[in-house]
Amino acid sequence: MKFLPAKLERKFRRLKKHARSPLMRKLDVMHERARQKVFQQSCDEYKDQKESEFECRKRPTKMPGGSRETYLSDGTFHQAVGRVLLVAEFFAMMPVKGVTGKHPGDLSFSWRNVRTCFCLVFITSSVANFGLSLFKVLNNPISFNSIKPIIFRGSVLLVLIVALRLAQKWPALMMYWHEVEQGLPQYPSQLAKWQMGRTIRMVMLVGMMLSFAEHLLSIVSAINYAWYCNGTSDPIKNFFLLTNDEIFYVTSYSTTLALWGKFQNVYSTFIWNYMDMFVMIVSIGLAAKFRQLNNDLRNFKGMHMAPSYWSERRIQYRTICILCDKMDDAISLITMVSFSNNLYFICVQLLRSLNTMPSVAHAVYFYFSLIFLIGRTLAVSLYSASVHDESRVTLRYLRCVPKDSWCPEVKRFSEEVISDEVALSGMKFFHLTRKLVLSVAGTIVTYELVLIQFHEDNDLWDCKQSYYS
Amino acid sequence: MKFLPAKLERKFRRLKKHARSPLMRKLDVMHERARQKVFQQSCDEYKDQKESEFECRKRPTKMPGGSRETYLSDGTFHQAVGRVLLVAEFFAMMPVKGVTGKHPGDLSFSWRNVRTCFCLVFITSSVANFGLSLFKVLNNPISFNSIKPIIFRGSVLLVLIVALRLAQKWPALMMYWHEVEQGLPQYPSQLAKWQMGRTIRMVMLVGMMLSFAEHLLSIVSAINYAWYCNGTSDPIKNFFLLTNDEIFYVTSYSTTLALWGKFQNVYSTFIWNYMDMFVMIVSIGLAAKFRQLNNDLRNFKGMHMAPSYWSERRIQYRTICILCDKMDDAISLITMVSFSNNLYFICVQLLRSLNTMPSVAHAVYFYFSLIFLIGRTLAVSLYSASVHDESRVTLRYLRCVPKDSWCPEVKRFSEEVISDEVALSGMKFFHLTRKLVLSVAGTIVTYELVLIQFHEDNDLWDCKQSYYS
Amino acid sequence: MKFLPAKLERKFRRLKKHARSPLMRKLDVMHERARQKVFQQSCDEYKDQKESEFECRKRPTKMPGGSRETYLSDGTFHQAVGRVLLVAEFFAMMPVKGVTGKHPGDLSFSWRNVRTCFCLVFITSSVANFGLSLFKVLNNPISFNSIKPIIFRGSVLLVLIVALRLAQKWPALMMYWHEVEQGLPQYPSQLAKWQMGRTIRMVMLVGMMLSFAEHLLSIVSAINYAWYCNGTSDPIKNFFLLTNDEIFYVTSYSTTLALWGKFQNVYSTFIWNYMDMFVMIVSIGLAAKFRQLNNDLRNFKGMHMAPSYWSERRIQYRTICILCDKMDDAISLITMVSFSNNLYFICVQLLRSLNTMPSVAHAVYFYFSLIFLIGRTLAVSLYSASVHDESRVTLRYLRCVPKDSWCPEVKRFSEEVISDEVALSGMKFFHLTRKLVLSVAGTIVTYELVLIQFHEDNDLWDCKQSYYS
Amino acid sequence: MKFLPAKLERKFRRLKKHARSPLMRKLDVMHERARQKVFQQSCDEYKDQKESEFECRKRPTKMPGGSRETYLSDGTFHQAVGRVLLVAEFFAMMPVKGVTGKHPGDLSFSWRNVRTCFCLVFITSSVANFGLSLFKVLNNPISFNSIKPIIFRGSVLLVLIVALRLAQKWPALMMYWHEVEQGLPQYPSQLAKWQMGRTIRMVMLVGMMLSFAEHLLSIVSAINYAWYCNGTSDPIKNFFLLTNDEIFYVTSYSTTLALWGKFQNVYSTFIWNYMDMFVMIVSIGLAAKFRQLNNDLRNFKGMHMAPSYWSERRIQYRTICILCDKMDDAISLITMVSFSNNLYFICVQLLRSLNTMPSVAHAVYFYFSLIFLIGRTLAVSLYSASVHDESRVTLRYLRCVPKDSWCPEVKRFSEEVISDEVALSGMKFFHLTRKLVLSVAGTIVTYELVLIQFHEDNDLWDCKQSYYS
Repeated sequence: MKFLPAKLERKFRRLKKHARSPLMRKLDVMHERARQKVFQQSCDEYKDQKESEFECRKRPTKMPGGSRETYLSDGTFHQAVGRVLLVAEFFAMMPVKGVTGKHPGDLSFSWRNVRTCFCLVFITSSVANFGLSLFKVLNNPISFNSIKPIIFRGSVLLVLIVALRLAQKWPALMMYWHEVEQGLPQYPSQLAKWQMGRTIRMVMLVGMMLSFAEHLLSIVSAINYAWYCNGTSDPIKNFFLLTNDEIFYVTSYSTTLALWGKFQNVYSTFIWNYMDMFVMIVSIGLAAKFRQLNNDLRNFKGMHMAPSYWSERRIQYRTICILCDKMDDAISLITMVSFSNNLYFICVQLLRSLNTMPSVAHAVYFYFSLIFLIGRTLAVSLYSASVHDESRVTLRYLRCVPKDSWCPEVKRFSEEVISDEVALSGMKFFHLTRKLVLSVAGTIVTYELVLIQFHEDNDLWDCKQSYYS
Repeated sequence: MKFLPAKLERKFRRLKKHARSPLMRKLDVMHERARQKVFQQSCDEYKDQKESEFECRKRPTKMPGGSRETYLSDGTFHQAVGRVLLVAEFFAMMPVKGVTGKHPGDLSFSWRNVRTCFCLVFITSSVANFGLSLFKVLNNPISFNSIKPIIFRGSVLLVLIVALRLAQKWPALMMYWHEVEQGLPQYPSQLAKWQMGRTIRMVMLVGMMLSFAEHLLSIVSAINYAWYCNGTSDPIKNFFLLTNDEIFYVTSYSTTLALWGKFQNVYSTFIWNYMDMFVMIVSIGLAAKFRQLNNDLRNFKGMHMAPSYWSERRIQYRTICILCDKMDDAISLITMVSFSNNLYFICVQLLRSLNTMPSVAHAVYFYFSLIFLIGRTLAVSLYSASVHDESRVTLRYLRCVPKDSWCPEVKRFSEEVISDEVALSGMKFFHLTRKLVLSVAGTIVTYELVLIQFHEDNDLWDCKQSYYS
Repeated sequence: MKFLPAKLERKFRRLKKHARSPLMRKLDVMHERARQKVFQQSCDEYKDQKESEFECRKRPTKMPGGSRETYLSDGTFHQAVGRVLLVAEFFAMMPVKGVTGKHPGDLSFSWRNVRTCFCLVFITSSVANFGLSLFKVLNNPISFNSIKPIIFRGSVLLVLIVALRLAQKWPALMMYWHEVEQGLPQYPSQLAKWQMGRTIRMVMLVGMMLSFAEHLLSIVSAINYAWYCNGTSDPIKNFFLLTNDEIFYVTSYSTTLALWGKFQNVYSTFIWNYMDMFVMIVSIGLAAKFRQLNNDLRNFKGMHMAPSYWSERRIQYRTICILCDKMDDAISLITMVSFSNNLYFICVQLLRSLNTMPSVAHAVYFYFSLIFLIGRTLAVSLYSASVHDESRVTLRYLRCVPKDSWCPEVKRFSEEVISDEVALSGMKFFHLTRKLVLSVAGTIVTYELVLIQFHEDNDLWDCKQSYYS
Repeated sequence: MKFLPAKLERKFRRLKKHARSPLMRKLDVMHERARQKVFQQSCDEYKDQKESEFECRKRPTKMPGGSRETYLSDGTFHQAVGRVLLVAEFFAMMPVKGVTGKHPGDLSFSWRNVRTCFCLVFITSSVANFGLSLFKVLNNPISFNSIKPIIFRGSVLLVLIVALRLAQKWPALMMYWHEVEQGLPQYPSQLAKWQMGRTIRMVMLVGMMLSFAEHLLSIVSAINYAWYCNGTSDPIKNFFLLTNDEIFYVTSYSTTLALWGKFQNVYSTFIWNYMDMFVMIVSIGLAAKFRQLNNDLRNFKGMHMAPSYWSERRIQYRTICILCDKMDDAISLITMVSFSNNLYFICVQLLRSLNTMPSVAHAVYFYFSLIFLIGRTLAVSLYSASVHDESRVTLRYLRCVPKDSWCPEVKRFSEEVISDEVALSGMKFFHLTRKLVLSVAGTIVTYELVLIQFHEDNDLWDCKQSYYS
């Protein structure tokens, strides 16, 4: 019945149309009128959009393998993350060449590159630092609170190694991403093109600045503390003895080691913050792609579209899903480290908040750092949940497809959207959705209530035991 | 609108009947007989319904953009919540003009309106009060129990601000709601039209009265307590020193400040109760719209209906879903504050129930307030879950569509009902369903069991520390 | 396209058949062969089944409204629960007349019936008993352990009232059940007819006997304890003072009151056990109906059946679902009381298991009662989960429908089975599935671990405080 | 079997192509080009695969009941687990004859077989050992920690009995498995055939070796401890008194009993490890079957396939699902024992990790055993979750079916994949998916935090109380 000769089918349809009752036709008329109303309401911007879209739409079909210059337009994820990755490279992560290049084809990874060497050297240095921390922790009584340095340094080390592996895959990932972007409906305006990049840059900037502010406050509070404890006569030595206690637990004081420790410290703090921001940025990128598709669907919401339109959209949706899957495979270990880290640190910091603060500098640093931690965790949760949310929005437009345009392709599209769970994940152990936020919050409250029982007040702020790290 | 000309349809059926196997025909006969039985059972009221419906149904198709008087009929949500919002306006919330007007088109929001000004003044006053509470709490040791005043005042303040923003959106929301109501199958009788309004008024009345009773009891108990503690010789001063301890913690006693504190107290208590009631009332409204649709489906349950009937119902269902989504976006912050507030207060009050009561007045007030709190939480949970429940009931009628009427439209309708999760939510972090009630109850029990360990009996009822608020 | 004139359609089909590739036909041949193999494997019993089924199948279509004697056949739920309800009536529950009658039409409820009067008298007596317990508990310090008597008596009272309301609905429910049973595919053999009844009787018998054994042990242990404590010289008085301490807490000893207390005790214990058994029995009945349908589907598994066959099965499945829903509405309060009761009592008894037992009689009674409690909870969980499990089994047979028989009706059937959650529930707050068992077990372990902290050993077995009830 | 005669198909397509809009044709062209690109990319290995597949594919259709020699090819689950079961038989489990035979038809179970007798003798011996443990535990104060021996021995006993029952079903299960394997698309290369077997053997080897290493370390640590405690002058006697304290709690020392105890110990330890490995191995087997099917689907991903191809794949998918169900029914008790055991032992060992270790030998043994335990639990969780994961991968290929090949069969296939939950389970109480891992981890952390409160340090390492077992 499906392979009806075209002629017969057309006759048939005409027949069916005539067979329709007058009432049904009236309904159609009403529906049509409502549709026209929508047209008129958004008529002004609609025409402009239509025209620009029409041109955009023709371009990719005209020259899919055309001249290279066509790719140099803005709005791609590769260009948006360029500077973000440059910052990462400065901090010994993601040693990929060509991140600021205009085309992802310029990206390359090589073991002999100076970036990679720097990265490897830093990893070695971090391993040494981690070893020293581990040695100090194991030689003291272990508690939920005392393992903080090894959790901190261990996860930084893990992220460094994962980032190195990710760097190798990055050129291929960006090429795939580029292909997906080429296939998507083009942005309606120059403004929309810039939006994803702007959001990414803003998140990066705000994150970096807050992280920098926190680090400054931590230095101020450490100086204050060093002055208070007053171990030696040299204030600088006091400061370094305090902040790099894991080094001087095994060796005597030396300025070189102190500087190395400080350098390690600054870099570790950056990387620890960067992993959350990286998950956010990838999420923003993926959500933006879904939004781009949804915007196109919204423009044609409730209108009669040809099955081929839906087929095209479905394939585009599918490619974004596959992209989402690929990115998830690549970064899910980072996501998992980021989430478990945040969970642990919030628990520890909330517990510490029960202590009496020895000075105002401490109090300011402590509460700033706690609020920054909780805010960052919320931000990374909500940004990563937005991928899932955007992927479900598509359904809203599919629900409004009028009766006559309802074809097997729309049906297939909507069933795929319903049954797929498109979201970033923590190694597939958990999916990043808004419901996760609540369960994480519930877990924190439960653990906190239980942990309070083991809390003893004044074991954190005496000079014998470093509060730092 | 939904009946094919009877003659044509009968011919059609006869044709189809001949093409069928005898077994199928037998089944049809059985089915038909069952259907007729249902007809006969509910024959008496059915005819009356039918007739009234027929008239109702004709009206909107006749004059969709007709004279304004046709809209003045009862049964709309706008009219049902009119007085509820009027009460809210008296208590400095939701400053919308025209809430008691007959048509939602009369609604308007303006920053220069006296209501808005009153609201803004009250918000400023509440901020001051909140600041005083915060100051007092932070200058005393912090515990799960001692932060109660800032949780209370903080959430009242938050709700006030959200309500102000909601007021701006309210006219548009009510217009959309009105449009949805115009499109729905009309009420079968005058009684049904009134039902939603009656339920809303009853919930409001009962809630207000219980809340008033609780406040009276709290005053009695505070007088009793003030008399017992006997700080100064002036009983009225004693009372105000007790109930507004956050004010007189920073300044010395003054009657003006005491009256301002009392006024603030009464208003805060009302608003704190009102946010639960508001969620309930919106839920009742949304559930009533789904019920209205379901009633129509029930009337034609198991009958042969034309595809256009199902198409119409599907579009109506869709519009209610969109309405539900819009309302959820508008009030989900209130819902979240309401739920987390109730969770916290039940935990605190259950913990306090372990204390020995100093007097009968205290015991009566305490247990009344605890039962009222639990009852209100249950009521808001169950009423808001009813939106989800009603939206699923539709499926029951779709399941009974006979074989011959099973068409792509019914299929699409039923798939949409299955896959959509229509429910109010707390900022999409959790959906308000009946299953939530159990998990909230489980959470309360778990937290309570853990919290009991930190409980010390006699720190709540000494005169040095106020028990109030 | 759906309303193709029959002639044209037939031609079309013939055409399509010819158009099939030889490869597809080969596949069909293979499929056919596999099907025949299944035939031959189960050939012996299959033929007998077939024949009996054929006769059964003809009967209901022949005389749907035939002579009354046709209904008198065995295998109905009404007949299976007859004696179970008779026992309940003896214990002042479910005062319905005609429970042992052959036809559910004989059932009737009347307020003037002697059963109803007995029931009402017993409820009054229970209220008095509950009041006495409540008075005693409130006059002593309240703990998780000490509220056991009011939880016990309160839930018994609640179940009594619910059972009275259920009794009013019972005749209508049984009539509906009877109609559903008439419509189902008949049992293949006399043995299958008897099975449900046999299981129900066995569950009732085993449950009653274990409950009786537990009560005997409790008496032995109470006598032992009374002898040990030796309050007065009269051993019988000692015994009653111990077991009915809530009565003699307010009045002095009197034999009449003691006997009333004992009577109340025996009856309460029975009713407390009976509510679990009642849930089990209803579950067995519902699961048996699904099994009956599934057996029919299994007989025709993998065969080419006409669409009307599937349509018929789908409608039967639907009616059982509706039946399940109606029963759930009627008994879900009992289910909820039963589950929360079991949860509470297991927690209390596990806590008590940490105590040192004063005598062997106590130890035997205690461990017997604990194991009986856990066993009963598991049994009620698993039996009630079996309703859900059986309702999902249907899907297994729908999955094996061969390609050529795959028609819209099968599709609709399978989609309905997938999307419906057919299960008994505790007031819709939770559904009784196998997954619930695990979460209940997890909850018990968690609560237990927390509760152990409040446990003090020797406050339960001293003579001042009764251990009983 | 799945290719329409090429000529006919091409004609068909041309016909269909003409009927389409130019836009659709353009889309097709794009799609076709992408498809060709994939072809070219994987062209080298593709051809080899194709050819080998073609030959493989012809074989089973040519001689489905052919000579026995055709079955003797590699790659079947039966052959892969042969040696694994042989090891099990040596340790008194799974007494099936013919496990190393080439054909599952050679498998047989008999009560009179020497394996079965050995197994029964060992079960009797284990019951005795369990009884002795139970006696010792009940005669000492019971705690979360002290019941470890009875949990250990009890679960070993349970697994032994379940394995005996499984042995009876094993021949039939393997026959069914063999049938399923015959119906699946053949392996593309000899390497792929070997892979499952290699993985299984490696898992078994690594597991056995680690378990052996742990046992050796336990002996070393026990010798160390026995020497330290120095109960008697005979070091061997000291050792056995320590490791078999449950025996010498009731009788005096005897070398025969000591050896029996040691033998029992070694065997129990093996069986305790084996149950996890068995679940892993069955999971690997089931996942491999799904992977085999998925590989075939991947080869034809995005191509135009005839409906019969999809029908065939769907039936194969169905048979693997049924196989998965059968295996789950057979081993789900083992799975449940394995998971609850691991949960309990991780909790106990984590608690013990808070103790101070008396010697280096203890510390090494303890941490090795803890890491091995956690690693094994993770491995069994992830391997068993892989069955579920692989069963979902199928969907990925179904999503890429091009528009023109989308037929009712593909639709049915994809709906079945979506709605089925194919996974091993713990008696259907929980399904083994990746999400389970997280909830198990969360449960361990919660329980641990609560349990720490009951922890007392020095009750585990004194000589009066054995640390062993």
